[in-house]
Amino acid sequence: MNYEAIVLAAGQGKRMNAGMNKQFIELGGEPLIVRTLKVFDGDERCNGIVLVVNPTERGQFEQLFERYRIRKVVAFADGGQERQHSVYNGLQALRSGEIVLIHDGARPFVRIRHLHELADAAVQYGAAIPAVRVKDTIKKVDGLFVEQTIDRSSLWAVQTPQAFRLSLIMEAHEEAKKAGYLGTDDASLVERLGRPVKILEGDYRNIKLTTPEDLLFAEAILASRIAE
Amino acid sequence: MNYEAIVLAAGQGKRMNAGMNKQFIELGGEPLIVRTLKVFDGDERCNGIVLVVNPTERGQFEQLFERYRIRKVVAFADGGQERQHSVYNGLQALRSGEIVLIHDGARPFVRIRHLHELADAAVQYGAAIPAVRVKDTIKKVDGLFVEQTIDRSSLWAVQTPQAFRLSLIMEAHEEAKKAGYLGTDDASLVERLGRPVKILEGDYRNIKLTTPEDLLFAEAILASRIAE
Repeated sequence: MNYEAIVLAAGQGKRMNAGMNKQFIELGGEPLIVRTLKVFDGDERCNGIVLVVNPTERGQFEQLFERYRIRKVVAFADGGQERQHSVYNGLQALRSGEIVLIHDGARPFVRIRHLHELADAAVQYGAAIPAVRVKDTIKKVDGLFVEQTIDRSSLWAVQTPQAFRLSLIMEAHEEAKKAGYLGTDDASLVERLGRPVKILEGDYRNIKLTTPEDLLFAEAILASRIAE
Repeated sequence: MNYEAIVLAAGQGKRMNAGMNKQFIELGGEPLIVRTLKVFDGDERCNGIVLVVNPTERGQFEQLFERYRIRKVVAFADGGQERQHSVYNGLQALRSGEIVLIHDGARPFVRIRHLHELADAAVQYGAAIPAVRVKDTIKKVDGLFVEQTIDRSSLWAVQTPQAFRLSLIMEAHEEAKKAGYLGTDDASLVERLGRPVKILEGDYRNIKLTTPEDLLFAEAILASRIAE
């Protein structure tokens, strides 16, 4: 099944401490956002991309599309105060389509194979997200002391892209907006409606670049791919 | 406060898929376990180390001590069926001391500064462990579908070394053994007794090398340290 994509690139990137929007940080000679967009741009099943950006940065992104021959960005949307508002704006800019994949611009290591699996699962289940098993021991902490060790056997760390039937995720965002509900990801808005969200096994290398340590990891992943 | 250390090096390392005990994998030209032991060996506050190993591998470890001039390993203990059994055996081999730090051999990036903070906090609180805030969205999954998104604001991923008053962790292990209770870490055995466990802010770079991806990350961390 073909799909539309919404890619989020409006973050402040404060935790990256790079003095600029982290999307422009170069990774192996190419800006982070270019690496991410190229995956979707090169996937024949991707109909088009809505890119959510800070309004003041549109020109910079357009220069990148030209320089790196990225052809599938069909619209910009403005970043909002919270991630959820950014996605909402992206959905408004999209409007048509059957399946939508919502992705963090800061996850450049997603594979085309996963895009296809997620889109297909969204057709079947309505919502499908990639996740990996939690490897660490996780504890609930009250700030200073342990409150409780959580049974990790059922815990998964979720990633993006998260795939949805467009009508379902539109409804979920509208309902959340009405209720003033803020979720940490898009799937949580669907869960809130009592609708199923399918889990697909993700890839530990599909990291989100958030802190300076993550840049180190990203360079290492990149080096291993070149060696593949 | 000075301390004794128990370092766990008996794992099978199946998930590393290296065809040998992962402790012997070379990282920047030195075996993983050597990098870990060197941190404790070079800390003036460390009185001695009990190394928990597979009985058949003692000779290999002894060769490494000689080659890399590691002087503080005062005893071996045998690895058990589960991690908890290995620690129990390590505690039996230790017997004396006031504060003990229990550490994964596969975490070579721990810093001496953290060893001191943890030992001092164990004097004050009885038990102290390093942890970092969970960055990912965490969901409880029933195998195929999301059950629940967990509020991550209070979730921490815990690391080692975990520091304890020796009398407290001895008691906690004895009680767990009597009850047939298996915890995912040592602190959980103390929590089980209703005793406080202090959280200290850890370091995201203090990773445990578990899967082949982690080796990539480790090489990157190592490279960044050499550049420091």
